[in-house]
Amino acid sequence: MAKSDDDRRPKYQRIADSLREAIEAGEYGPGDRLPGENDLMDTYGVARMTARQALSVLRDEGLADARKGAGVFVRDFRPVRRRGIDRLAHDRWGNGQSIWSADVGDRVLEVDSITVAEETPTERVGAVLGLTGDDAVCVRRRRFVLDGKPVLLARSYLPVSLVAGSAVTEEDTGPGGTYARLAELGHEPVHFREEVRSRMPSKDEAAQLEMAPGTPVILICRTAFTAERSAVEVNEMTLDAASYVLEYDFDSGPTASAPSPQERPRG
Amino acid sequence: MAKSDDDRRPKYQRIADSLREAIEAGEYGPGDRLPGENDLMDTYGVARMTARQALSVLRDEGLADARKGAGVFVRDFRPVRRRGIDRLAHDRWGNGQSIWSADVGDRVLEVDSITVAEETPTERVGAVLGLTGDDAVCVRRRRFVLDGKPVLLARSYLPVSLVAGSAVTEEDTGPGGTYARLAELGHEPVHFREEVRSRMPSKDEAAQLEMAPGTPVILICRTAFTAERSAVEVNEMTLDAASYVLEYDFDSGPTASAPSPQERPRG
Repeated sequence: MAKSDDDRRPKYQRIADSLREAIEAGEYGPGDRLPGENDLMDTYGVARMTARQALSVLRDEGLADARKGAGVFVRDFRPVRRRGIDRLAHDRWGNGQSIWSADVGDRVLEVDSITVAEETPTERVGAVLGLTGDDAVCVRRRRFVLDGKPVLLARSYLPVSLVAGSAVTEEDTGPGGTYARLAELGHEPVHFREEVRSRMPSKDEAAQLEMAPGTPVILICRTAFTAERSAVEVNEMTLDAASYVLEYDFDSGPTASAPSPQERPRG
Repeated sequence: MAKSDDDRRPKYQRIADSLREAIEAGEYGPGDRLPGENDLMDTYGVARMTARQALSVLRDEGLADARKGAGVFVRDFRPVRRRGIDRLAHDRWGNGQSIWSADVGDRVLEVDSITVAEETPTERVGAVLGLTGDDAVCVRRRRFVLDGKPVLLARSYLPVSLVAGSAVTEEDTGPGGTYARLAELGHEPVHFREEVRSRMPSKDEAAQLEMAPGTPVILICRTAFTAERSAVEVNEMTLDAASYVLEYDFDSGPTASAPSPQERPRG
């Protein structure tokens, strides 16, 4: 930003800018305590309210967290690395390993709540799955926790006409999970589309993910397609953005020449 | 959420919840005016402050925008669809089309500011590019606007040792852009890694992207690799999350069997 703007900015913002720069330069690392209100009052010759406002800017930006009675600390960003493509590799989930276990390396991502229900899909989900009026979906709702902290909400939708009577409709889908069962049923997913967005969480999402203030959610909507270009699963995921880095690795050549179902697959 | 929680929530949150549900159900569409303070006071029998708080919850969540004197409106989410994989297809950028033009379909994403400089890289960028102490990088900083609104900041880093004297160091890199020039120089990028995060913007980012309150940024760090697994470009992108949907399409088979340089490529 042009220096000439600086003079017009309120004092608390300029103090927040200095602290932010110090954090970005690594002067204060993750988990470090930032200068307190008294320190800032001394250093910058400002009133307590100004010092407090400066610190609250950093909290609102998600750069720092307040701990009661202890001060304000640089937020510890130690995210899960979620590999969008390797993760779904056939030789991984095809051999009995659940896709989620690849998310975390040596850290354990666990399901702490799961419900399975038969429901009428929303219009959007129904359209993607190529369903008509009365077709129901099997909805698998799960919450995943990492080190005791909820990090991910997932709602997976599958046409009941495909999965009725299989382990997909049970809480425990068995080795290899939903995709292995779909393969056994003759609906092996071989192509995937992930759509990624970000926004602030709703109050409910913030509560379910026990999120810190000033933290957005990442939304991933994954659609799984068979070789016949049928969409067989839609999975709407809501991730605590403070807990995740998504990674997509791909080649320019082979991937580009593969058929890509950009259009609605059915119906 | 369990109904039993509802009674314990403050009134303004319950009103915000109702409005949010109505938005999600499509009762109020993008650009529609929400009930005003007076309407909410009448409907729910609450004080003006409570009505105001309810509306501000939706604004803080990025669901609605206030327009002075006109009311509060459902935010119009008409994002750019950025295809992470198709976009970089060899037959696209290999034939003289800049990768960015594929981002927007029939909408025009334009560069409204560009600077090119030779700099010492940060430690992180230097490490990814396999550079040592004195090696400089060519830094291309660009801001992209869509329909007159800034939506993307990009900082691209390339080793000076690779690109010195080429059009990569000029504002206009010529047909096909940076990647076409790299290919001509014998450093054709064939493998890409994109790392995606989200957080609230800094004040500077919010100013540069002219962002509405309650909107996060999406960060994409893209690394381009040659067939020899050398990293030849790091591109740090900052996107207004209200303007973007990222899309990644991939197959479970071929992509998985391709070599994936998860480790640091050099040095």
